[in-house]
Amino acid sequence: MAHIALPEGLPGITALLAFRPETAAPLNALADALLTAPSTLSRAERELIATYVSYLNGCTFCHNAHGAAACHHLEGRGDIVDAVRYDYPNAPVSDKLKALLAIAGKVQQSGRSVTAADVAGARAGGATDVEIHDAVLIAAAFCMYNRYVDGLATWAPSDPAAYAPMGESLATRGYSAAG
Amino acid sequence: MAHIALPEGLPGITALLAFRPETAAPLNALADALLTAPSTLSRAERELIATYVSYLNGCTFCHNAHGAAACHHLEGRGDIVDAVRYDYPNAPVSDKLKALLAIAGKVQQSGRSVTAADVAGARAGGATDVEIHDAVLIAAAFCMYNRYVDGLATWAPSDPAAYAPMGESLATRGYSAAG
Repeated sequence: MAHIALPEGLPGITALLAFRPETAAPLNALADALLTAPSTLSRAERELIATYVSYLNGCTFCHNAHGAAACHHLEGRGDIVDAVRYDYPNAPVSDKLKALLAIAGKVQQSGRSVTAADVAGARAGGATDVEIHDAVLIAAAFCMYNRYVDGLATWAPSDPAAYAPMGESLATRGYSAAG
Repeated sequence: MAHIALPEGLPGITALLAFRPETAAPLNALADALLTAPSTLSRAERELIATYVSYLNGCTFCHNAHGAAACHHLEGRGDIVDAVRYDYPNAPVSDKLKALLAIAGKVQQSGRSVTAADVAGARAGGATDVEIHDAVLIAAAFCMYNRYVDGLATWAPSDPAAYAPMGESLATRGYSAAG
């Protein structure tokens, strides 16, 4: 049961966005700027960073919802999403994305954990300054979204199949539309 | 030295906001929704929550800048800001704010650390559901801002006096204007 009186039947962050439209607008706009706006990082790559950080934070709703969005962008390759969650150094993704996931994992611990060597590794993999910036901010933003969703004890569906339609909606309609 | 090529001479998050205007807009809008919009929590109370979480995260720029904003709202009472940073249970603030700071400290660790007892404590202190929501989201948001500022190794002035004009600007002009 959630810690505050939320609209019933809405999973995860969607109940919070309905509860407080004043903060929902910038939260959705930030998600769209990071995850759906034009970028040299693919939408799948960005959703994989979001999924990985949410998994590290133990946020059931977020890692399933964003994992489902990544899976949609990857044409159903849930095995790639799982590989990133559980063992990204051996996942079938680019060296650049692996280096950005390494940075994201550091950010999940603390911003101060990111080293010059981590950033040099991303550059060696071909990452630009904007891509490094965006990976850091996606990771940081999910340290917010995850804490928001779990800090108020929102409801997360336990059936993994419940997340597929959410993932498809996020992948095709974006965040501001879904909120 | 910052991890990416940022505009020179801009401290902390201000360099990042200038580097990436596409994400600056929702980041500033979120800060305004949480910290400057009308609320039953005073602007000083909200800046104190931001300061406390930033202090726990070890973010020099953020805890000094938001501490300076809180100090401005408190008419120069930096002693209250320091009391909240270092020992909030004995700070000269309301029981309601102490209970919200306790929740914020839990959120800083993990969203899943917040207990029903923490929330009951805030209610006993007179907090409403919206106030509990906002305290959780302010704390979560600063877990993002702090990681963003430190994850890219932005420059933080070492002289505490450098933060007073920033605090006054944030307190009087808000976030979107300053960005």
